[in-house]
Amino acid sequence: MIKVGIVGATGYAGCELVRLLNAHPEAEVVAVSSVSFEGKALSEVYPSYLDINDMVCESADEVVSKSDVVFAALPHGLSQELAADCVKNNVKFIDLGADFRLESEDEYKEWYGGSFLDKSLHEESVYGLPEFFRDDIKGKRIISNPGCYTTCSPLALAPAVKNGLVELKGIICNCASGVTGAGRKPSQGSHYPELNEGFHAYKAGCHRHTPEIEQTLSRLSGEKVTITFVPHLLPVNRGILATCYADVKEGVTYEQIRKAYEEFYRDEYFVRLLPDGMYADIHNIKYSNYCDISLHFDSRAGKLIACAAIDNMVKGAAGQAIQNMNIIFGLDEKTGLMITPPAF
Amino acid sequence: MIKVGIVGATGYAGCELVRLLNAHPEAEVVAVSSVSFEGKALSEVYPSYLDINDMVCESADEVVSKSDVVFAALPHGLSQELAADCVKNNVKFIDLGADFRLESEDEYKEWYGGSFLDKSLHEESVYGLPEFFRDDIKGKRIISNPGCYTTCSPLALAPAVKNGLVELKGIICNCASGVTGAGRKPSQGSHYPELNEGFHAYKAGCHRHTPEIEQTLSRLSGEKVTITFVPHLLPVNRGILATCYADVKEGVTYEQIRKAYEEFYRDEYFVRLLPDGMYADIHNIKYSNYCDISLHFDSRAGKLIACAAIDNMVKGAAGQAIQNMNIIFGLDEKTGLMITPPAF
Amino acid sequence: MIKVGIVGATGYAGCELVRLLNAHPEAEVVAVSSVSFEGKALSEVYPSYLDINDMVCESADEVVSKSDVVFAALPHGLSQELAADCVKNNVKFIDLGADFRLESEDEYKEWYGGSFLDKSLHEESVYGLPEFFRDDIKGKRIISNPGCYTTCSPLALAPAVKNGLVELKGIICNCASGVTGAGRKPSQGSHYPELNEGFHAYKAGCHRHTPEIEQTLSRLSGEKVTITFVPHLLPVNRGILATCYADVKEGVTYEQIRKAYEEFYRDEYFVRLLPDGMYADIHNIKYSNYCDISLHFDSRAGKLIACAAIDNMVKGAAGQAIQNMNIIFGLDEKTGLMITPPAF
Amino acid sequence: MIKVGIVGATGYAGCELVRLLNAHPEAEVVAVSSVSFEGKALSEVYPSYLDINDMVCESADEVVSKSDVVFAALPHGLSQELAADCVKNNVKFIDLGADFRLESEDEYKEWYGGSFLDKSLHEESVYGLPEFFRDDIKGKRIISNPGCYTTCSPLALAPAVKNGLVELKGIICNCASGVTGAGRKPSQGSHYPELNEGFHAYKAGCHRHTPEIEQTLSRLSGEKVTITFVPHLLPVNRGILATCYADVKEGVTYEQIRKAYEEFYRDEYFVRLLPDGMYADIHNIKYSNYCDISLHFDSRAGKLIACAAIDNMVKGAAGQAIQNMNIIFGLDEKTGLMITPPAF
Repeated sequence: MIKVGIVGATGYAGCELVRLLNAHPEAEVVAVSSVSFEGKALSEVYPSYLDINDMVCESADEVVSKSDVVFAALPHGLSQELAADCVKNNVKFIDLGADFRLESEDEYKEWYGGSFLDKSLHEESVYGLPEFFRDDIKGKRIISNPGCYTTCSPLALAPAVKNGLVELKGIICNCASGVTGAGRKPSQGSHYPELNEGFHAYKAGCHRHTPEIEQTLSRLSGEKVTITFVPHLLPVNRGILATCYADVKEGVTYEQIRKAYEEFYRDEYFVRLLPDGMYADIHNIKYSNYCDISLHFDSRAGKLIACAAIDNMVKGAAGQAIQNMNIIFGLDEKTGLMITPPAF
Repeated sequence: MIKVGIVGATGYAGCELVRLLNAHPEAEVVAVSSVSFEGKALSEVYPSYLDINDMVCESADEVVSKSDVVFAALPHGLSQELAADCVKNNVKFIDLGADFRLESEDEYKEWYGGSFLDKSLHEESVYGLPEFFRDDIKGKRIISNPGCYTTCSPLALAPAVKNGLVELKGIICNCASGVTGAGRKPSQGSHYPELNEGFHAYKAGCHRHTPEIEQTLSRLSGEKVTITFVPHLLPVNRGILATCYADVKEGVTYEQIRKAYEEFYRDEYFVRLLPDGMYADIHNIKYSNYCDISLHFDSRAGKLIACAAIDNMVKGAAGQAIQNMNIIFGLDEKTGLMITPPAF
Repeated sequence: MIKVGIVGATGYAGCELVRLLNAHPEAEVVAVSSVSFEGKALSEVYPSYLDINDMVCESADEVVSKSDVVFAALPHGLSQELAADCVKNNVKFIDLGADFRLESEDEYKEWYGGSFLDKSLHEESVYGLPEFFRDDIKGKRIISNPGCYTTCSPLALAPAVKNGLVELKGIICNCASGVTGAGRKPSQGSHYPELNEGFHAYKAGCHRHTPEIEQTLSRLSGEKVTITFVPHLLPVNRGILATCYADVKEGVTYEQIRKAYEEFYRDEYFVRLLPDGMYADIHNIKYSNYCDISLHFDSRAGKLIACAAIDNMVKGAAGQAIQNMNIIFGLDEKTGLMITPPAF
Repeated sequence: MIKVGIVGATGYAGCELVRLLNAHPEAEVVAVSSVSFEGKALSEVYPSYLDINDMVCESADEVVSKSDVVFAALPHGLSQELAADCVKNNVKFIDLGADFRLESEDEYKEWYGGSFLDKSLHEESVYGLPEFFRDDIKGKRIISNPGCYTTCSPLALAPAVKNGLVELKGIICNCASGVTGAGRKPSQGSHYPELNEGFHAYKAGCHRHTPEIEQTLSRLSGEKVTITFVPHLLPVNRGILATCYADVKEGVTYEQIRKAYEEFYRDEYFVRLLPDGMYADIHNIKYSNYCDISLHFDSRAGKLIACAAIDNMVKGAAGQAIQNMNIIFGLDEKTGLMITPPAF
């Protein structure tokens, strides 16, 4: 049984880790911490966990000392020290925050305003998007778990980008996320009456996930990719839909693109490439680790339109983190994650 | 492995059975039927099941022939023949419809307009509300699974009623249900723009679940109970909240009532009696088989207010049906049903 | 043109007053104040008012000095001084808070924990529920505008209570309100992901609107009435549905009750008594000053079930306040309030 | 008083016309028709109109005979004959359907599968998007009212396109619409439990509004424009957000673009160009005739991102139709349409 600790357990991602790990046959949550709720039971913060997980929040140190692997769901900037602690204590570290996501310290400075405390940790860390970088993840001890937008957007585009079927210039990732993506802390923008029956873009062209999506697409294509990324806020709890646009290269047919996707995702359990005519819908993957992808071709304008739907809290956070844990502990990647998405 | 067949698998209750049974370690769905979608795959009807359950809908006969137990989620009136078939074929039968719920044929006639085709089947059948009638269920082959309102309302009131702590006259069950309770068939009343941002009562004082709630409360109290039952339609997908009112008997204290609830539900895994001060909320039990109960006392008016929250599709339908299956097959009642309700 | 000032204009009730008064042909908002947003434009707080009302928030004193009538939408306890100021300056005062609602200082102390600063102001003030107390309101200068639950619950019950058709003992007001009732301030309970897809009771048997409803029913019946009041929180923006239960007196028929309601509300423009068979629905009155009432009779249990639906922010707050303004200024009561509720 | 008739009054656009015209000081609805509900009162179909508009649905002929102007909200293909009738009877005709929207019969055939019954009517008709074509509309008797997506997308892009500030190739209109856009008829896709908590694209690259948007952008730019248009379905009742992407021409600055928008919309009452840093949100314009536009610049990729939010049923249908009526009858264009959008 893998002993799991969660630092930052009372945030939404931490809380979702608890839910998913409760159903994991080879892992068990042994300790949780929370700065805001130290000394309180998790089920006092989330009454849906009453009688199921009444574990009391401890300090991060205690969590590290009891665990084989620590998941950290912290505001950016706080994970680097914790990672160092874990390495020192021979504990695997899976970071759901942003500290290790960008390879370039310059980009990290530009978008997050911080610096790399210990470059060797950054070099050692690996970006945990298993569908692309599975082989790099095996055996590692510091995993940087991708963000939500940065999981679904590259999944939507990868086969086309990697196989050189679309132009790398001018790619647009138009995304819409459920409100849990904004976290547990109440704010005017997530106050029910002001969000309900609303829909708007935010941080258009300047969201921090932009360089992370570009980094992944650049690795896949072998060339530096610059994209336009515009997130929107949806009046739903969970789910992200990425609607991505790319110019199809001269001479490339839709059939070639379709085939490339089929091959690329043939063995990927968590990616469901929908039959032509269907549309990826966040309704159909919620609470699960699936990524549904649908392909559409605007032949008049020569554009590929690729839609990808994930649950931002599962494949976009806690589920993918567990997928990474399974990989580094040598388990079947799907262990504990074969969840049937509810039909409603 | 128990071989499970589902007749009426494309309705919401049938579809939810599939989701829950996918996670059941001792049972597997071997056949499904649907009148409306015969020949179609379940995942064509519910795309969230794609690649998970692509089973094709067959006839009810085929389902019976392949199964150890058949769940029926049919419009009322259609289960009685199917039950007879199952008995003939030595197949257990768990009915999610209303045909076997009322013991009195007169009441069945009055509220449903039908008659009992084979009285011996009705006598043999047992009403499957395990928290009250567990011992009766063991070893039976025809189980009548209670309705949604008729599960949560008696659960809210049972300890008070059974222990004679409240007046039996004047009990009110004021309930509110999510839309899935109305089924999969589109109608004007469940058309998104006309239900969204709305809330209203329906069938006030004349809903078919009335005699069924009364039957259970009468069995518990040993006296004929008449209640007032008013359901409302909530703009949410899942969940029922029953807010029940009863006059506390002269001389009875709230502490006595609280204690009676604690004793009654002490060993019930699926019932969570919330600490004083908390309120049962459908938000906290959705997708799970839990029933959360909170107690409130209006000392000025001498009223007990008991709230019970269930997921109408789980504890109010498919989950409870599996709980019954576990009982009749001698499994631990909780098998496959220890689901952590998501915190959001 | 009546010069209107609004103190506490950036709360939801204040903001709704602005919306409604924008369409009032005989009144105009001349000044607004806000403690939290002094110096800011109203449209900075509510971007839907951009270019429509960009008025800057001033101090309460400035508002009083410029106005013929002041509406106050303040936390309880703060209105009494403002009322005194208004009287001194010969400005009419309409209070949307609770300070003047209860006639009994003892009850005010018990439920709100404050005292009456100037008893003569309280004696002069009048409770502004026009459908019941219209004649008292005329010519007054201090109006206490009823709360939301305390408008719809008595409207649902008045004709039965006033005409002695139901027992006064055992009345239950089971209500459900949209989230705007909880105000503009973000909190965990109104954070989108934790309220959405949820439903629960709160303050069961102990909500501050209880004595206010009782006061109105007592005035109507001539006897001291004690009720049980349980509010619930609905995942919608606007609207309150009161589902009220009362025992029909021996010998009284439903036809008598129906006739009493028809007579009582015959000339009330804002009350729509629905035809038998229809159900009051918050969907059908939102954004308007209507109160829809539907009557249902549980003949088995001898209970009257009366449902009333209002928009908590209009008939339950700002609209009713304007109705009161119209009365005290001698205008047609409906002026500016003949709003067609949108069908969706 | 302008006598208004509505053909197809029980659909959502027709019903919204009734709501808006109820508040119009110079027009009154004198007759309504409905194929599905002939002989029924409008308030039987929409109970929110009870006691406000209980007008009974007649035949289309009767409507034409009583009216100065007829609004038609019909399935495409049915308006052409009605237009001919109106012209014959000297009645103005404002079509909310698609029959007269496309100038090219070839395009009409390609996208709608029909033909022009009487070419002279088509030549006489004018496309009623007042902000662009106001002068053409004056004095006309057949107005083709634009669709919802086809109102907001060009409004988002017009100043940039008309002033040659962006490339005409590669324009993307990524839109999301509330459910009322799909009409009143229940369907599986608009059944509450299957739409709620969902979000998906539909008709990507092949929606009928594509050629209409292109027609408008081509008229504004003077060149044939081809766009990529992808609509999405939002779980809200009302509102469309168009998020439009265009490549900024080499050498053009954001300041130039901003200035062009300010000039273009300076005198447009119904267009609110939001200050930099704000985002157009459907929450802020619902129930009103406003179009909120926000501009964003992705300097890294050289893309203009222009967001426009309208209420699909008001500026995207009934409100704009009334705006057109005001123009052809010589009234102030804003008459009856100066509605403050509610803040929640």
